[in-house]
Amino acid sequence: MKWLETGQPGFEAAFQALLDEARETTTRVDAAVAGIIAQVRAEGDAALTGLTARFDRWTPADAAALRITPTEIADAVGAIPAAQRGALETAARRIEVFHRAQLPQDLDMTDADGVRTGLRWGAIDAVGLYVPGGKAAYPSSVLMNALPARVAGVQRIAMCVPTPDGVLNPLVLAAAALAGVTEVWRIGGAQAIAALAFGTGSLRPVDRIVGPGNAFVAEAKRQVFGRVGIDSIAGPSEVVVLADAANEARHVAMDLLAQAEHDEAAQSILITDSAAFGQAVVAEVEMALRHLPRAAIARASWVAHGAVVVVGDWAEAVALTNRLAPEHLQIMVDAPRDLFAAIRHAGAAFIGRHCPEALGDYVAGPNHVLPTGRTARFASGLSVFDFLKRTTWVEADAAALAAIGPAAVTLARAEGLDAHAMSVALRLGNKHP
Amino acid sequence: MKWLETGQPGFEAAFQALLDEARETTTRVDAAVAGIIAQVRAEGDAALTGLTARFDRWTPADAAALRITPTEIADAVGAIPAAQRGALETAARRIEVFHRAQLPQDLDMTDADGVRTGLRWGAIDAVGLYVPGGKAAYPSSVLMNALPARVAGVQRIAMCVPTPDGVLNPLVLAAAALAGVTEVWRIGGAQAIAALAFGTGSLRPVDRIVGPGNAFVAEAKRQVFGRVGIDSIAGPSEVVVLADAANEARHVAMDLLAQAEHDEAAQSILITDSAAFGQAVVAEVEMALRHLPRAAIARASWVAHGAVVVVGDWAEAVALTNRLAPEHLQIMVDAPRDLFAAIRHAGAAFIGRHCPEALGDYVAGPNHVLPTGRTARFASGLSVFDFLKRTTWVEADAAALAAIGPAAVTLARAEGLDAHAMSVALRLGNKHP
Repeated sequence: MKWLETGQPGFEAAFQALLDEARETTTRVDAAVAGIIAQVRAEGDAALTGLTARFDRWTPADAAALRITPTEIADAVGAIPAAQRGALETAARRIEVFHRAQLPQDLDMTDADGVRTGLRWGAIDAVGLYVPGGKAAYPSSVLMNALPARVAGVQRIAMCVPTPDGVLNPLVLAAAALAGVTEVWRIGGAQAIAALAFGTGSLRPVDRIVGPGNAFVAEAKRQVFGRVGIDSIAGPSEVVVLADAANEARHVAMDLLAQAEHDEAAQSILITDSAAFGQAVVAEVEMALRHLPRAAIARASWVAHGAVVVVGDWAEAVALTNRLAPEHLQIMVDAPRDLFAAIRHAGAAFIGRHCPEALGDYVAGPNHVLPTGRTARFASGLSVFDFLKRTTWVEADAAALAAIGPAAVTLARAEGLDAHAMSVALRLGNKHP
Repeated sequence: MKWLETGQPGFEAAFQALLDEARETTTRVDAAVAGIIAQVRAEGDAALTGLTARFDRWTPADAAALRITPTEIADAVGAIPAAQRGALETAARRIEVFHRAQLPQDLDMTDADGVRTGLRWGAIDAVGLYVPGGKAAYPSSVLMNALPARVAGVQRIAMCVPTPDGVLNPLVLAAAALAGVTEVWRIGGAQAIAALAFGTGSLRPVDRIVGPGNAFVAEAKRQVFGRVGIDSIAGPSEVVVLADAANEARHVAMDLLAQAEHDEAAQSILITDSAAFGQAVVAEVEMALRHLPRAAIARASWVAHGAVVVVGDWAEAVALTNRLAPEHLQIMVDAPRDLFAAIRHAGAAFIGRHCPEALGDYVAGPNHVLPTGRTARFASGLSVFDFLKRTTWVEADAAALAAIGPAAVTLARAEGLDAHAMSVALRLGNKHP
């Protein structure tokens, strides 16, 4: 854990080092992934059964056995404990409401020249959703990735999840059922991405693939990009907590640890105007690390990437936060909205002393798939926009063409594109423009 | 040019071949580009002067000489012929109006549980715009890339354009002035992308880079992706024209050639319900190729990639168009809106017999940077959304937390993330949840 104070010499260099910190270690798996993709393209279904036996240690009888039946999916919700079922339903309902409110309006305007122009939103036909298996099989991620697609109007949502040794987390299947996933396949790794991108006979290809995965999955998404759309490749998660001394230190400590427990590469940063409060939080972190089940991971993250930054005032905190452009931002001060108004770059903000990030991870409504590693400067969290696309359109009659056509002819000629110019000029009645 | 008829044996195979046609030849320049990026990162300004001398054959006195002064930019509009100036101003005004109408609304909602959630749009701070030099220096592309950024509220738009042998197209500079570009640099190739992504001392880094370029520029954008945002890598351009026999064949022929004259890899497809009309269009294409200045390019495109598809009815045409998901779509039939309503996938549509694509390339208002190579299935044209990002937010008080917190605790426990659960439970008053 690093301790920085804005007033001290060397602060700028230390803060810049924090910004430049590379928390991600990328394994180079390009060639292995290219081989798997080529095999899936060449052999289709047969490749999937073989690769599943090799990587997931169970052998499907045939390609049909890779698909979980619609009945199994529908039954999944009823098969889990009532409390978990209720919580998943609460989460699904709230996420759906928030994403439905995002749906954009079409545009249709006619201007003084008589030219009618517009923009029409439409859903992608088919989306593939990758869900990691094993430890990191999070039902909340299924809801967060699938519900925006369903709300956008995507008709076909094909989910792939590896089932190592044949085992599948029933909560993941229940989340898929609640989120309206239309197909679930027991396929993992690069072969799942290849199957979704190119199709295999049994599994029809999709148009866009979303969802987190390991290095093989991420590289496979990179390699099929262009053939299909992909979401951005998520890096390790991070939180910045802005908190004054009026907070309970143990609350803030647990917020920092909630981030740290994800991953050794996660990053938790406290920015406070009170060094004493900062010290109290550090002490509470140490206390909590004694009993947390995932203390080993959380401690590794906190020691390597954690930081406490003591600022002279909140304006300094805002400036530093904008440079960090954090994935998650908690604002726990007296007038949190004033600070939020001044923050330009953050993936998601949690406003007030009673609003820990974990609320947003599960049930608040906004998406928990968010831009990491300072990319909130230019990127956004997952939303219905990821599953919609726009078609712009122009409608012109002879009068409208006469009004704006000559300018098009002039510019086409200036660019040396004569067929462009002629396509307009011929319609204006100029045979030899 | 291929001639296909839906009723004939072998149609499906021939159409599928058209869909699978790879028109793009990618040059592998990974290593060369990685070297240039490393040099720019290591040497900053000094690398730029050296690389410019090497690739663009002129030697800047120093890094400051790479920048075109604000006065030069401002003066550029006055220095071009009045007709071109007027046409550029018309285009800029119309593009600005259309993109301003796209600006989305923020979201702010409070639900029955007392949880307030929202979504806030904000502009990216700084955008880099790459503009190719030489033949392909198109002022219209400057307008189409820079104006959406300015409308979105981007404060800093840094444009890089190579000036081979020191030469710069004055129209490109005029377009930059009209579009509100704030900096123009005489830098090209992979070194420009590296400079924009990492900064060089003189040139400060940006957050996102857009604009077309050659294989080196495209590969450099791939390599800096993550550090900054990038737009999609455009492939060769294409048009599908739906036209019945009531059209003038020479209009349609010129529309097809306007696409073909861009690039040998461009593709022009006519879909018609009249074989006789298709034959008339083919004859008019041959006629026009005798006198078009760019006939060599247009002919190469038409011969290799052009196609006429004769359909039995317009429902067939719609189905085929959706499979093609074309970048540009002209709809020249009696009730064009009926067909447009049934088209799910197209980058931009041009509706009616008086609405050639060239209108949209220059002055109609919608963007001419569009998804190519069937990616309109999942991707969209450039828009203000490319220069905005979203911050979602949640605000909860103690009562709101009490309403939805327990569900979060349940899900966090189910996922084995105890610090997540504790961060909520502690605030609910459960010391040992």
